[in-house]
Amino acid sequence: MILINFIKVACEMSEKIYIGVDLGGTAIKVGICSEEGQLLHTYEGPTEKEKGPDTVVGNIEKYVRLVVEQSPFEWDQVAGVGAGVAGFTNVKEGIIILAPNVGLKDLHIREILEGRLGKPVKIDNDANVAALGEAWGGAGKGVENCVCYTLGTGVGGGIIINGKIYQGFSGMAGELGHVSVVPDLEAIQCGCGKMGCLETVSSATGIIKMAKDAVARGERTSLAQVENIMAKDVFDAAKLGDEAAIRIVNRAAFYLGKSMAATAVILNPELFIIGGGVSYAGDILFDEIRSVFAKLTPEPVQKGLRIVPATLGNDAGTVGAAGLFL
Amino acid sequence: MILINFIKVACEMSEKIYIGVDLGGTAIKVGICSEEGQLLHTYEGPTEKEKGPDTVVGNIEKYVRLVVEQSPFEWDQVAGVGAGVAGFTNVKEGIIILAPNVGLKDLHIREILEGRLGKPVKIDNDANVAALGEAWGGAGKGVENCVCYTLGTGVGGGIIINGKIYQGFSGMAGELGHVSVVPDLEAIQCGCGKMGCLETVSSATGIIKMAKDAVARGERTSLAQVENIMAKDVFDAAKLGDEAAIRIVNRAAFYLGKSMAATAVILNPELFIIGGGVSYAGDILFDEIRSVFAKLTPEPVQKGLRIVPATLGNDAGTVGAAGLFL
Repeated sequence: MILINFIKVACEMSEKIYIGVDLGGTAIKVGICSEEGQLLHTYEGPTEKEKGPDTVVGNIEKYVRLVVEQSPFEWDQVAGVGAGVAGFTNVKEGIIILAPNVGLKDLHIREILEGRLGKPVKIDNDANVAALGEAWGGAGKGVENCVCYTLGTGVGGGIIINGKIYQGFSGMAGELGHVSVVPDLEAIQCGCGKMGCLETVSSATGIIKMAKDAVARGERTSLAQVENIMAKDVFDAAKLGDEAAIRIVNRAAFYLGKSMAATAVILNPELFIIGGGVSYAGDILFDEIRSVFAKLTPEPVQKGLRIVPATLGNDAGTVGAAGLFL
Repeated sequence: MILINFIKVACEMSEKIYIGVDLGGTAIKVGICSEEGQLLHTYEGPTEKEKGPDTVVGNIEKYVRLVVEQSPFEWDQVAGVGAGVAGFTNVKEGIIILAPNVGLKDLHIREILEGRLGKPVKIDNDANVAALGEAWGGAGKGVENCVCYTLGTGVGGGIIINGKIYQGFSGMAGELGHVSVVPDLEAIQCGCGKMGCLETVSSATGIIKMAKDAVARGERTSLAQVENIMAKDVFDAAKLGDEAAIRIVNRAAFYLGKSMAATAVILNPELFIIGGGVSYAGDILFDEIRSVFAKLTPEPVQKGLRIVPATLGNDAGTVGAAGLFL
C-alpha cells in the first residue's frame, strides 16, 4: 500500500522517467527510474542469445515496452532508454564492439533501438554503468567524485567525475582491474596479457585460484574438503579461522587496498564503492582493505575519504543504465 | 621586427589578455598571455621573501603592473590574473595554505590581490599550473585529456581533463609523485612519510641519492670523481657509457614508466607530458620510459597515446597561471 502510494506520488511529481536495460548473457533486466535515481518498477526476461542478435534486440524492445505497460507510467513519460552491456562498447557511436557473453559484435544498437522505440538511447559497458548506478542511486548518492570497484569474475572499475562516467581519451578509462600491483616474483599472467594485474588476485577467479593452489600444495586447510571451491567457500573458511583461507582473503584485500592507494593519489575521490559478488564477504574483507589503504595513502588524501560497500546489488546496472541520461 | 609586428597584430586581434604569475622562492615571473595561450610579454623580479609577506604581495602587484606598462597592451585589456604557487593552496577560497619556499602561510592572496589590482584573481599550485601551461600552450596544445609529470627536486603531477585542471574531492588530485611503486624490499621512505613513492626514485633528489649510494658502496663509476653530484652529472656519465649511471637512469625511468602504466589504465589520457629539470636528459630517459610503459600497459590503452617532453621549460608556470582563466 505504501509502495503504491509512493509510485502514485512519483507519477504525479515526476514528469519524466528513464528506462535502464542491463543486458546480460542469461537475462535482460529492465527498470524504470525516477529523475532522482529511484528504481520504481522492474521486468526481467531471458536474453535468448542462442537465437541470435535479432532475437536479443527484439527482446530488449519487448521488455522495455512491457515494463512500462505493467507500470502506472505512460510511454510518453519515457525520456530515454539506457543500456549497460557486458563487453566492449563505443559509447560515442552507440556500438557494441564485442560482447562475447551476449553473442553480439559490431552492432549499432543505439541506431536500431532508437528506430524501434522512438526514444533517445545511450549505451555503456557494465562496469561503468554499475558505477554510475551506485553513484546516482546507491552508496554514492550525493557524491560528485567516486571510484567503483566491482569484484566479480574479473575486477571491473568505473570512475565518476562530477556525477558522470569519466571515459578518458578512447573510452578505456577506469580499467581498474588492470593496474599492475603484484610484484614480479609473485605475479601471474592476466587475461589481458600483462603480468600482476589486480584482477589476478582480487577477483573471484583469483581467490579461487589461490585456494586451489593452496590445496594442491598440500596446505592444511578445510578447503581441501570442498569439491568445487567458490570464492564464498574461502570467505566462510576464513571466518571460521582457517589460516590458509585468511591468508588468501588478506592477499586479495592487500592488493586491492594498495591499488586503491594509487588511485587515491591520482584521482583524490571522496568515496570508494566496492561491489560485486566478492564484496558480500563483508567486514573480513573491508577491514583489511581499509587497514592497508590507511597504511599506504598519504594523510591529506585520506582526509574525508570513505570506503563503503555497494548498496544496490544486482540493481546497480539497471539504475546506472537509466542514469546515462543524467 | 617580426616580433613587434606579431605583438601589434595580437593587440588588435585579441581584446583580452591574461596575466600569469609564477611565484617562486627566489624570483617572481610574470607574463602576458593571449587567449590562445601565447606568451607575449614577460617580466621577472626578485621575490624578496626575507622582507616578509607584505613585500612579497607588494612585489607581485608591482611586477604585474610593470609587465603591462612595458608592453603594448592597456591595463583595461587585462581580463584576469592567475598565480601558481610552490606549496599547498586552497583553490576554491584562493588561499595559500603553506608555501615554505616563499615564506607564506594562511594568506588570502586572492582577496588581497583582487583588492589591489581590481582584476579577478585565481591561484593554484605550481605542478597543476605547469600542467595547464603545457596543455594550453605547450606540448599538449589541442589535447583535451593529458597527464603531466614534472621531474624536479620532487615529482609533481597535474591532470588535465577537458582542458581544465582536475582538482579531485579536496584539491589533492594528481599527486603523482606519491604513487607507491617501489617494492617493499627496495623501498625507502618518502618526504610524505610513506614508503616507496615514485618521488624517491624518479626525482632529481632520488637520482642524486642513488648516485651517492653507488659511490659510497665503492662501485666502479666515473661519478666517484664528481665532488657534488647533480642529476645532470648522472645523465652525462650514462651517455658516456658509465654502467652504474646507466643503471640509475634506467631505474628512475623504470618506475616512472611503471607508474605511468597504472595512471594510463585509470585515466586513459591521450598524452603524457614529462617536464622539469630531469626531463632535459632527453632520449636516454625517454627511450627507457617508453619501453617500460609499452611492456606494462594493456594494448587498447596504449592505442593513440603519446609520451612527449614538455616544450615550455620555465615558462610553463607563467603560461599555465594565465590559463587558469580559460
